[in-house]
Amino acid sequence: MNNTKEKTMSSFTSTIRTIEWKDTFSRMVDQTKFPEKFEYIDIKTGDEMFDAIRTMIVRGAPAIGIAGAHGIVLYAQELEKQYNNRSEFIDKLLEKAQYMKTSRPTAVNLMWACRKQIDIIESSTSDIAGIIEELKQNAVKLENEDIDINKRIGDYGAEVVPKGAAILTHCNAGALATVGYGTALGVVRSAFAKDNTIHVFADETRPRQQGARITTLELTKDGIPVTLITDGMCSYFMKKGMIDMVCVGADRIAANGDTANKIGTYTVAIAAKYHNIPFYVAAPLSTIDTSIKTGDDIIIEERSHDEVTMINGKPICPEGVKVINPGFDVTPAELITGIITEKGILRPDYKKSIKEIF
Amino acid sequence: MNNTKEKTMSSFTSTIRTIEWKDTFSRMVDQTKFPEKFEYIDIKTGDEMFDAIRTMIVRGAPAIGIAGAHGIVLYAQELEKQYNNRSEFIDKLLEKAQYMKTSRPTAVNLMWACRKQIDIIESSTSDIAGIIEELKQNAVKLENEDIDINKRIGDYGAEVVPKGAAILTHCNAGALATVGYGTALGVVRSAFAKDNTIHVFADETRPRQQGARITTLELTKDGIPVTLITDGMCSYFMKKGMIDMVCVGADRIAANGDTANKIGTYTVAIAAKYHNIPFYVAAPLSTIDTSIKTGDDIIIEERSHDEVTMINGKPICPEGVKVINPGFDVTPAELITGIITEKGILRPDYKKSIKEIF
Repeated sequence: MNNTKEKTMSSFTSTIRTIEWKDTFSRMVDQTKFPEKFEYIDIKTGDEMFDAIRTMIVRGAPAIGIAGAHGIVLYAQELEKQYNNRSEFIDKLLEKAQYMKTSRPTAVNLMWACRKQIDIIESSTSDIAGIIEELKQNAVKLENEDIDINKRIGDYGAEVVPKGAAILTHCNAGALATVGYGTALGVVRSAFAKDNTIHVFADETRPRQQGARITTLELTKDGIPVTLITDGMCSYFMKKGMIDMVCVGADRIAANGDTANKIGTYTVAIAAKYHNIPFYVAAPLSTIDTSIKTGDDIIIEERSHDEVTMINGKPICPEGVKVINPGFDVTPAELITGIITEKGILRPDYKKSIKEIF
Repeated sequence: MNNTKEKTMSSFTSTIRTIEWKDTFSRMVDQTKFPEKFEYIDIKTGDEMFDAIRTMIVRGAPAIGIAGAHGIVLYAQELEKQYNNRSEFIDKLLEKAQYMKTSRPTAVNLMWACRKQIDIIESSTSDIAGIIEELKQNAVKLENEDIDINKRIGDYGAEVVPKGAAILTHCNAGALATVGYGTALGVVRSAFAKDNTIHVFADETRPRQQGARITTLELTKDGIPVTLITDGMCSYFMKKGMIDMVCVGADRIAANGDTANKIGTYTVAIAAKYHNIPFYVAAPLSTIDTSIKTGDDIIIEERSHDEVTMINGKPICPEGVKVINPGFDVTPAELITGIITEKGILRPDYKKSIKEIF
């Protein structure tokens, strides 16, 4: 396995860097502009970052974790100009850091990364400038760790990808959902580095179409073959024997393995089970929230109804039609073949295997 | 049951007439214009009708059956101007009638209704004008029968709808998929007439969004409560106990009960099975093709890739991305709780119950 990992990590280069700290601001790919434009946007204040997360300019559980960490640095830079008193500065910054955690509710990586910054604020013995420097360094460290973690996830995952496999994925758990390389698409990248006959089926992923807009984009950029299908089609291709495994990301994993991910994932998992196709979740350990016993306790974000009723600026249904738009669903542990982490693949019983890994 | 049926059939009026023969031409609702416009279009030649079916200006298995029957009358009117010789007229008309059957491949109602017209052409003893008159009368008879059949389907179906039920439907098997009243939505209409606390969940139904564009429109017009969801969401609501039954239409049913319907139906059926939710198919007997043993033999139409890659005139993915776009899938009989027809609800073993009903 070590050989495989080294070979893979040296042989495949993902071209995408989704988010990066740039001395005094955060630079990110604007993910609301795909497929028309691949553009960077510079985020220079904490409030701008809060909105960038909320409106999904940056999205994907690991990426919004880093974004949250950057956002706290931005708030710190602003507060430095307003407060000379170290204690007042720290009080205000902790308030802002807690606020940053609320920019989206489901992905636990956001709370996890903000917590890492809060730990620094609470434990630092430096002066204001020193605290800010420590927060910056930690943000950059988290960024670099994210890519490294994803490559490890990818390499563990690649071991369970059959030769020439067709891998179905839902939403985008790619380079563009992380700092780079990706989780589920990290598995794809590592597998492709070993065997360039694999290919990907990408679910469109309504309502926000991250599969169509983002997954196909980043795989095409990296030369990995991808076929776009609509969300309802997965079973059709499974029955035809055209899909060999499913691999998706995660926004929060409970202590028993129940996994919150983009709405529609649960439906794919049920279809995979019905066709006896392995269903893998790829996620860093920071996505596992051991404080939550089962998926029933994961908060599911209800998003704007316009996401369902409007596409490309035009309505797709009559005005006033009732809509419910949960952003995520929970796939129960019983449907999950394995959870691919940077420390290896967790297998059922997840309650036991998750406990052991921490 | 007779009481229920009479009460229902007299108490609920659907406001929509999808297609109607008007003396010398066919008038239909243009279903490509929803939700912006609810417009009628007059189809005056056989070739126009062929294109109206192919491009889905008219769609829905029963409705395209009637459209095919109308199309053959239109061809007959054109050929009357070109041929004085009865035998030549009949040869040419049979050729056109066979061609009309090929305008779409999956829905067997099209072949069935064209066959009804072909029977008249082949057996009539009238002169050319007389044949045309017989074809017109038969077209109008098929229209009226369609509404009557749908009301019977609706009333049988209403008996299995629990009080206050939430009914999930996929695509549009409504008034706008038939001449009027609908099959799956006929069940909804009849159930609503008895119990106005029921409501409908409508799957968007990508790629062509018949659920969003058509089902929500026609239910809203008739005052029946409807909630629009995306295709991947069905399992989320099933798990929450918010869906009590599924009812969908059909494009072709094999002799063993395997049912071809709009792509995505099979995925919903698997999800329903996983949650122990009854899954019903509502369709006239003309949708059952006893010449086909199982669903494996049903031809599945592959439609334009633009349906997947473009919405409201704009691309949703990078140019050149590979797409597969099957228009239908096959739900195996084992997932179907009952097939609601105008002669009652067929139950498993369908091979047996279908044989008995014919």
